[in-house]
Amino acid sequence: MVLSPDCSKALAGFSAHRNVRVANDGLLAMRINILREFSMTGRHFLHVPGPTNIPDRVLRAMHVPSEDHRNPTFPNLTLPLFKQLKRLVRTETGQAFIFPSSGTGAWEAVMTNTLSSGDKVLASRFGQFSHLWIDLAKRHGLDVIVQEEEWGTGASPEHIQAELEKDTAHQIKAVMVVQNETATGVTSDVAAVRKAIDAAKHPALLFVDGVSSIGSIDFRMDDWKVDAIITGSQKGLMLPAGLGIAVVSQKALEAQKAARANNPLRRVYFDFEDQSKANETGYFPYTPALPLLYGLREALQIILDEEGLDNVIARHHYLAQGVREAVKAWGLTLCAKDQKWYSDTVSAILVPEGFNGADVISRAFKRYNLALGAGLSQVAGKLFRIGHLGDLNELMCLGAITGAEMAMRDIGIDVKPGSGAAAAEEYYRTNGK
Amino acid sequence: MVLSPDCSKALAGFSAHRNVRVANDGLLAMRINILREFSMTGRHFLHVPGPTNIPDRVLRAMHVPSEDHRNPTFPNLTLPLFKQLKRLVRTETGQAFIFPSSGTGAWEAVMTNTLSSGDKVLASRFGQFSHLWIDLAKRHGLDVIVQEEEWGTGASPEHIQAELEKDTAHQIKAVMVVQNETATGVTSDVAAVRKAIDAAKHPALLFVDGVSSIGSIDFRMDDWKVDAIITGSQKGLMLPAGLGIAVVSQKALEAQKAARANNPLRRVYFDFEDQSKANETGYFPYTPALPLLYGLREALQIILDEEGLDNVIARHHYLAQGVREAVKAWGLTLCAKDQKWYSDTVSAILVPEGFNGADVISRAFKRYNLALGAGLSQVAGKLFRIGHLGDLNELMCLGAITGAEMAMRDIGIDVKPGSGAAAAEEYYRTNGK
Amino acid sequence: MVLSPDCSKALAGFSAHRNVRVANDGLLAMRINILREFSMTGRHFLHVPGPTNIPDRVLRAMHVPSEDHRNPTFPNLTLPLFKQLKRLVRTETGQAFIFPSSGTGAWEAVMTNTLSSGDKVLASRFGQFSHLWIDLAKRHGLDVIVQEEEWGTGASPEHIQAELEKDTAHQIKAVMVVQNETATGVTSDVAAVRKAIDAAKHPALLFVDGVSSIGSIDFRMDDWKVDAIITGSQKGLMLPAGLGIAVVSQKALEAQKAARANNPLRRVYFDFEDQSKANETGYFPYTPALPLLYGLREALQIILDEEGLDNVIARHHYLAQGVREAVKAWGLTLCAKDQKWYSDTVSAILVPEGFNGADVISRAFKRYNLALGAGLSQVAGKLFRIGHLGDLNELMCLGAITGAEMAMRDIGIDVKPGSGAAAAEEYYRTNGK
Amino acid sequence: MVLSPDCSKALAGFSAHRNVRVANDGLLAMRINILREFSMTGRHFLHVPGPTNIPDRVLRAMHVPSEDHRNPTFPNLTLPLFKQLKRLVRTETGQAFIFPSSGTGAWEAVMTNTLSSGDKVLASRFGQFSHLWIDLAKRHGLDVIVQEEEWGTGASPEHIQAELEKDTAHQIKAVMVVQNETATGVTSDVAAVRKAIDAAKHPALLFVDGVSSIGSIDFRMDDWKVDAIITGSQKGLMLPAGLGIAVVSQKALEAQKAARANNPLRRVYFDFEDQSKANETGYFPYTPALPLLYGLREALQIILDEEGLDNVIARHHYLAQGVREAVKAWGLTLCAKDQKWYSDTVSAILVPEGFNGADVISRAFKRYNLALGAGLSQVAGKLFRIGHLGDLNELMCLGAITGAEMAMRDIGIDVKPGSGAAAAEEYYRTNGK
Repeated sequence: MVLSPDCSKALAGFSAHRNVRVANDGLLAMRINILREFSMTGRHFLHVPGPTNIPDRVLRAMHVPSEDHRNPTFPNLTLPLFKQLKRLVRTETGQAFIFPSSGTGAWEAVMTNTLSSGDKVLASRFGQFSHLWIDLAKRHGLDVIVQEEEWGTGASPEHIQAELEKDTAHQIKAVMVVQNETATGVTSDVAAVRKAIDAAKHPALLFVDGVSSIGSIDFRMDDWKVDAIITGSQKGLMLPAGLGIAVVSQKALEAQKAARANNPLRRVYFDFEDQSKANETGYFPYTPALPLLYGLREALQIILDEEGLDNVIARHHYLAQGVREAVKAWGLTLCAKDQKWYSDTVSAILVPEGFNGADVISRAFKRYNLALGAGLSQVAGKLFRIGHLGDLNELMCLGAITGAEMAMRDIGIDVKPGSGAAAAEEYYRTNGK
Repeated sequence: MVLSPDCSKALAGFSAHRNVRVANDGLLAMRINILREFSMTGRHFLHVPGPTNIPDRVLRAMHVPSEDHRNPTFPNLTLPLFKQLKRLVRTETGQAFIFPSSGTGAWEAVMTNTLSSGDKVLASRFGQFSHLWIDLAKRHGLDVIVQEEEWGTGASPEHIQAELEKDTAHQIKAVMVVQNETATGVTSDVAAVRKAIDAAKHPALLFVDGVSSIGSIDFRMDDWKVDAIITGSQKGLMLPAGLGIAVVSQKALEAQKAARANNPLRRVYFDFEDQSKANETGYFPYTPALPLLYGLREALQIILDEEGLDNVIARHHYLAQGVREAVKAWGLTLCAKDQKWYSDTVSAILVPEGFNGADVISRAFKRYNLALGAGLSQVAGKLFRIGHLGDLNELMCLGAITGAEMAMRDIGIDVKPGSGAAAAEEYYRTNGK
Repeated sequence: MVLSPDCSKALAGFSAHRNVRVANDGLLAMRINILREFSMTGRHFLHVPGPTNIPDRVLRAMHVPSEDHRNPTFPNLTLPLFKQLKRLVRTETGQAFIFPSSGTGAWEAVMTNTLSSGDKVLASRFGQFSHLWIDLAKRHGLDVIVQEEEWGTGASPEHIQAELEKDTAHQIKAVMVVQNETATGVTSDVAAVRKAIDAAKHPALLFVDGVSSIGSIDFRMDDWKVDAIITGSQKGLMLPAGLGIAVVSQKALEAQKAARANNPLRRVYFDFEDQSKANETGYFPYTPALPLLYGLREALQIILDEEGLDNVIARHHYLAQGVREAVKAWGLTLCAKDQKWYSDTVSAILVPEGFNGADVISRAFKRYNLALGAGLSQVAGKLFRIGHLGDLNELMCLGAITGAEMAMRDIGIDVKPGSGAAAAEEYYRTNGK
Repeated sequence: MVLSPDCSKALAGFSAHRNVRVANDGLLAMRINILREFSMTGRHFLHVPGPTNIPDRVLRAMHVPSEDHRNPTFPNLTLPLFKQLKRLVRTETGQAFIFPSSGTGAWEAVMTNTLSSGDKVLASRFGQFSHLWIDLAKRHGLDVIVQEEEWGTGASPEHIQAELEKDTAHQIKAVMVVQNETATGVTSDVAAVRKAIDAAKHPALLFVDGVSSIGSIDFRMDDWKVDAIITGSQKGLMLPAGLGIAVVSQKALEAQKAARANNPLRRVYFDFEDQSKANETGYFPYTPALPLLYGLREALQIILDEEGLDNVIARHHYLAQGVREAVKAWGLTLCAKDQKWYSDTVSAILVPEGFNGADVISRAFKRYNLALGAGLSQVAGKLFRIGHLGDLNELMCLGAITGAEMAMRDIGIDVKPGSGAAAAEEYYRTNGK
């Protein structure tokens, strides 16, 4: 149809889109200012590697009136949560803790409860999040033996075994492994790390950061004899941030008792014993983040009882593979050095020389309502990241792929239009049911 | 990473995705059954030409506790709504009515209030919705002169003028035009129809069905001297269905008074006078659909005061054009016969001989969580429709395009993978801001 | 503690409460203006006899994204609804219809589908809502024999039987009874009306308005051989307004077929046949009010499958009785003339000579955030009404009682403070579990 | 009306209310079991002293899709929050911190950032929450001088002054005061404590626990030269738990720098410097509890910009006074020993000898859907508490009062029915606007 002059004007280059009227009141003015600068219509495409998209059902489940967290019906909600969390990490013997915190809080909880000041721990560093965990350990007074691995690779079972074998006095109390390094899109092989520890016949605890893997990438606490696995609510669990979750083994709980008696790291908020005592009957030592607990119940039902954990993990692999096919079709490469490191929750994509990944991200956000992840620290500017975890499907991933194509072309990166989409489409078509 | 045997099995062909556990309780069982048959993870891509996607803000605005619709603060909500609806259809002199009904109810309201039993009306038929409106008029005892136009075209100003010129006795009381025929993706030129009526010097009222155009395609009630425009809440207004909206001219209100005295069509629920009397002070003759009124306030603020009506219309044109570029790249054609009929809210895409549009739709829905519109009546099976109206952006349209590409290829239609996406991407990239 | 001078000033007579700052932006200004004039903190106490309080669960259930109402999973939602509605009115043989309308629309649907122009119907009038139904029938061209009963009483089986016995030609096609007259707080005995019709050996259809009784007061469609029962969503069903519900007998459906052939009343929107045809497979002839259908599913689950219908009805009686004890303790009387007319969903309370019920209502709303129902028509000013239906409990009723006590005292009605509360408390304490 | 036999049976003593059908599926079964044991219809009356009732607007504001907390529009949300929090505690010079934690976390943050291991602090103990804070300080290795005050009184400025005057070496680094002791319903006079410190010419920092006072009871950070005030989201701020808030003075920030250099208490999660650095530009060092930030914006707008902080404080006093009038009318006494200790956010009501406060609470919860607060530690069983803070009004308080009357009478406490309600009503009627 023929557009009226006013509408044609509005369409001219579509830049007039943002030329909205000036408002003099607070919130409206803010909305209009944002609308002027950013694309704000339609659904936001959230493709950072967390926080992830929250299913509508989970949002609804959290829209609850307040209640007394000491009321007699409360354990009906909470006691099953602890059980479900154990199913999520595949443990029968571990104990789950839920803190009103982020994943960082769960890290701090595990470190401060199970170790003593000056204890030696062994940790691999190969990205921003493994770095931050090491930093946290150091700042709490632990003596961290850092194994530097090339960014784009992960924890090396060989290096770990070698270091442990050197430690004949068994001074190393714990091995820290990030299962999925969100910064580089690298998944470490935790089962192999366990084998390395066993091969070294070393009694060290095995601590795993599963923030961006739990509920998305296979994890088997009991099979792999993991002593502490931590995660946050805002990744594979498809919730807002606000819950720090730790599941710890009986061996770790023994260590906790020992640590308590001997030059302990101080903590109250994150204290396991306070929690344990209250959790036993379904309560908490202080007010929990209530709506998130309702959301957690809904999310765990979806993952464990409706879609099924194996199916969820398979879906993550399938969706990730489609994204990787797109990257290949673009002629670009991943930060992950080898297929064995490829992460099923996030792909870190290197931009060609002469371009800045931050420009892709900025363009995608402002112009196409698409949130991509940035390169951090060592890899700042060198890459952009597509998160593909949580409540996702094929078309959402294709939205991210087509958006990235447009944003890359807009800043001059020479990828063929539609090439990534075509590759992903063909993968999805021929690999799904 | 290497998948475990269980997860690999789940991934095998991804068909195991649906092989979820059997549940023996009601709602959970239903969810799992649906999950088994349909893709249910991630966001649903809703691309029928209504109901349309509801912005989160609008959903929130409707999440309100109950209240007495006769309380003294109620007019603070309602009185501005009538004014905003007039801005939406660009009238200063018309009067807006809001019924708890669908758009069909608004049709019935306009017909039964303004016409008398046996009155002659002139209507063009060129699709399922123009057909249904004619059917409604006939069933109410009106004498409808039907002008058949080829499906894929719209109302013909020439034919209308000719018919009116024949009617020297001015027995034709109203001309009925569907501005946007949702079934074929055709937009009629209402301004030209007005000119045709004027050229024929005929006093007939001009009634327009704007169900799938208002708030998306340009409409100018006063400029075009339209006597009744009707719409529903679930299209350009980005709300759930449940509000039937009619804005009528003073001339139509005069006709209503005359009709009342003379062999009237019966109605109480849809009576304009009952509404008028109560609306004057901000109330309704019976309980209104309260949450939708709060939603309407939010939606109208977005359209009129934040994005701006001209911008909204321009955006619809821009997004539609991207979809049309994709269709061209696929080597397919639209049901609309000519560019001048192209609808900016829905594209009806003809499938090649030997294929059934319904198969594309079924595949898209079950496999890719994408809802496309079906061919109806004369064009059943011959096409599928992509709705592109309401709260949309580029990546949502690209989701529909890539999903349609996959679904078409899955049933054997030979379109080049990524071709539609590439064409739309390049259009969006180079025509936006 | 000692208040600061500023806070003391704010407290002075608490009138400064409303003296909030002037805002110059739209919505905020409106909120502040309302806050200045009305009490707005805390929960609103909604005690009109509909719309009623919506349970949080039901609000959540309606907070759903949009979807295509023609998609293949849709009947999973809708087909069980028709069955549940039949359970709600205790029929095995009737057929349920759900319209996007108010209860008035359901009235119109029943009248226009089953009767022909000029048909005789018999109706009792004893309040505003029985009056409005008669008015609707007349405006549709029916010949209504009106039996005037004293306001404060209900339908008289004796009078009905007498009138029917006079009608030896069986010209009366239907008897219309309002089960619960919301304006006067009177419940008619529908079972007795059935007996009267049977005693008169008259074949007339029996139509019942159950707007403010269904889901709250016992109703037995099959036992009482009712031919049409209508209700709306915003009363006992604890939903927002927007659904008009009619359940009709096979006899009424036969009448509908006959009426269609013979001088029919016109309707399309409310046509039973269009609905029937589409409903059969779980769809609707036009877009339904989707979120309300999700809400209806939740509400019916609560009523039928969790609390249980008998329990719900018993609870309404119990809560109503507490309110009536309070009225007695105040020394006031109900509009209902006799215990047998007492409604379990609303009490209409006569104010003493010299006072205006509207002043009680206005005071309660503005000062105590309590919505009471007004006297209408004949009883305007003579009473105020406490609605006690839907999602209620003892303390909500006590909120209404204490609020009414304060409002009455504020305008000078001499009730003893706490007297109504004491009487209701003692009733609840000693009659509950 | 006459009830049917089934409904009469259901009504019999109303005990059958709970005799609902057996369900064999998970969530439904749980709901029915709860329904069988507890009153579940209607609105829950939440009258513990936190978590408090969340306004519907605030719940809506938190119902938001996920987003990247590092996106460029994010500071539009966060930067104003820090400013508004400063207005809330009436400081121009302090700095606000927001942690994803409970109030306990904010306690820990203040202690661990500003003090060094072995530092001396002075604290008054007169209830469970002052006790817990002291416990937290001790467990972090601080040397706490505990001043025991009688439960029912608060911090003694005289005792504090005396202790500080003894400390001529100025070894005491901080004075810790709980402004409102939630366990006993006692408000301490923080201004007087400040005067005592000044009178002693002591440089100690002044730390205040405002968990159950901020946003409800007057607090003036700058006027009273408070060095750290902490609160949680789930009390006067009318939000769910999940945010720990601390506002600290420049003097405290200086102390923080000093402490860092000298035998520091370890923390990372709660580190002020990490926060400061990120907060400056509107971001956080780790993922914040996003929905709560949107809720906080809405709550602060209500408190500061709509109702107004002085009005909010005055309303709390007014509502509290009504509850106290009820207690007096019952012939009971408060745990608070004297009017000067009365808390405007919670009343702890002593039950007569021979009764157990826990029985009142249990009865109120199970039978009347009313949550009251329990006696803790020293006063366990001796009292029950009515919380009256947050989003409350007169009728909500009257709901708590009438519910408490019934529950007390049910367990045999001889209070006159309606007596408390009458007293509160008369207070509200004559002291409001």
